[in-house]
Amino acid sequence: MRRTWKLSETDLEALAIGAAILGAGGGGNPYLGKLRARALLRQGYEIRILPFDALEDSDIAVSVGGIGSPVVGIEKIEKGDECYRAVRALEAYTGYRATALIPAEVGGSNSVEALIASAYADLPVVDADGMGRAFPEVQMCSYFIYGVRPYPAALADEKGNTVILNKVPDMYWLEKLARTVAVDMGAAAGFALPLMSAEEVRRTAIPHTLTQALGLGRAALEARSRREDPIARLLEVAKGVLLFIGKVVDVQRRVEMGFARGQVRVEGFEVFRGSTLVIDIQNENLIACRDGEVVATVPDLITVLQLETAEPITTETLRYGFRVAIVGIPAHPRLKTPQAIEVVGPRAFGYDLGYRPLEGEV
Amino acid sequence: MRRTWKLSETDLEALAIGAAILGAGGGGNPYLGKLRARALLRQGYEIRILPFDALEDSDIAVSVGGIGSPVVGIEKIEKGDECYRAVRALEAYTGYRATALIPAEVGGSNSVEALIASAYADLPVVDADGMGRAFPEVQMCSYFIYGVRPYPAALADEKGNTVILNKVPDMYWLEKLARTVAVDMGAAAGFALPLMSAEEVRRTAIPHTLTQALGLGRAALEARSRREDPIARLLEVAKGVLLFIGKVVDVQRRVEMGFARGQVRVEGFEVFRGSTLVIDIQNENLIACRDGEVVATVPDLITVLQLETAEPITTETLRYGFRVAIVGIPAHPRLKTPQAIEVVGPRAFGYDLGYRPLEGEV
Repeated sequence: MRRTWKLSETDLEALAIGAAILGAGGGGNPYLGKLRARALLRQGYEIRILPFDALEDSDIAVSVGGIGSPVVGIEKIEKGDECYRAVRALEAYTGYRATALIPAEVGGSNSVEALIASAYADLPVVDADGMGRAFPEVQMCSYFIYGVRPYPAALADEKGNTVILNKVPDMYWLEKLARTVAVDMGAAAGFALPLMSAEEVRRTAIPHTLTQALGLGRAALEARSRREDPIARLLEVAKGVLLFIGKVVDVQRRVEMGFARGQVRVEGFEVFRGSTLVIDIQNENLIACRDGEVVATVPDLITVLQLETAEPITTETLRYGFRVAIVGIPAHPRLKTPQAIEVVGPRAFGYDLGYRPLEGEV
Repeated sequence: MRRTWKLSETDLEALAIGAAILGAGGGGNPYLGKLRARALLRQGYEIRILPFDALEDSDIAVSVGGIGSPVVGIEKIEKGDECYRAVRALEAYTGYRATALIPAEVGGSNSVEALIASAYADLPVVDADGMGRAFPEVQMCSYFIYGVRPYPAALADEKGNTVILNKVPDMYWLEKLARTVAVDMGAAAGFALPLMSAEEVRRTAIPHTLTQALGLGRAALEARSRREDPIARLLEVAKGVLLFIGKVVDVQRRVEMGFARGQVRVEGFEVFRGSTLVIDIQNENLIACRDGEVVATVPDLITVLQLETAEPITTETLRYGFRVAIVGIPAHPRLKTPQAIEVVGPRAFGYDLGYRPLEGEV
């Protein structure tokens, strides 16, 4: 009997909160996906998690996620089985059968997308992902950063379209083609790739991120129910740094090429009174500057939490007046090698700025 | 031994002229393709034509063509084997081997694209096509109008990308997805589909169009060398109607969504002195109005020829001062059934106008 464990409804609640925290402001809101996943559990579908160290050499894992624009994702409700059908299309195309799924990204809605696909496919989900957070573009998956072949890929939409990206010269072309096809499909599609051996997953994935999300969500829920300070609890569990406490006073946001871009200004209170923190956003929170000094940079996670509840706030729902705590969570070491920083560091997002570790990190 | 015949360099010259005439102003200029095909012939490649009635029941024909924007096609030189690689991708995907190729459209550059792919693939080209002329969009192929399944399709570019459109709800989605992928690929890609049985080709293709193009081209070349009136010769061979003779006095052209749109105004001389003819263009010449009266409508062909040489002028090279003859050539009956008129008649292009046969036609 395979060493997997079954995700409960309570786990799902916690995991959705944790995934939003790991979304670092992006990755889409997991709320709708959570409702869909819960409905599946109530219909008798099972969602099973495969521990990272329980992967067997013969395993074949397919990575899945939604692709499109999170701004659209809120309003356009998916049919629900897009990722599942993308997996089936990829299997039919390659002739391989997946023995497990793995989320493309744990942050935001995509962890839940993988859970939903796993329920439909009756396949366990590996406790890992390709980002350890949320990132806006496909080439930012650790799979590709560490050399997994960026094709073939399958996309599926709710209208019955499926497209195979059969061969691409590199992961940037993968992103470019997948993104336009997804926009054609209505700016939200299910996406399946790569199909990986166990060795490839072990070598390239960000491990233990589903349980990390679960732990963060549980901590937030527990602290709330015990009336403890949820921010303090989260910082402890996440091994994070409190970057700021304050009130959102300005949000500039625009949609460019399907991406949410902008800047958020927060005025401090409590120990941060008199200070200002500015966050640069491209779907995710990427750079935090406190009084002009850079205090956190991508790939480290910058997450905005409601001060009283520690509820994570995604960039598309941020608005004037929110009272927030801004926390920095160190990214997994696999995202901070020179090889990774080239693809997911500040310069990859167009900033003339090197990666700077969080306070207290080396 | 299979009943095919070998295309010579002289045939190629003639066919390129005829294909441009059948382009009805669109389909891209066959000039660059002709040079590439000629270079292949000189390198020892063969281009063989399979007569329409020589199709065998066991034949499997794959339709090929370039897809993108003809405005870009002039400036962006293809690597040359894009269509061939699209065919191979489609074969690999479906598990079938093509025994013949067939042009998606005879008009403009696409007939030559099919010849080039056939040289690389060492497969004959069926003397037929899916349009009998040029049309701007994929769903306008007679294959799809008459019910051939609009998937799977393969696209390939010069950078090494290949994409499979695995499943689409209908031929309009095929066009939509293929077009965006082609734009991503740099607005010019090789496109292969559908893969058809002999029965499907016989039932849905526009027959004898390569030999028709060849006949038109030969007539133009012969008339020029014999100093006969080439326009009169072409009208005879094409069974066409002289719509107008005059000077181009105004060309309005804009590129929208990769398509060339516009209007051309011609002031008459000789028997047409005092008259004006206006052509509406969307890549191809679609509607001709003489002194406010509609004299030709799509799918009949409206072709603009240089008055002295009968050299066809494509919409993107039209300009002030050209002395031209404008001829109407009746479209094949398969393009004029109610079923076809719905997809390729004036209303399909947004005109509030029914199809009107050419003068002298019923």
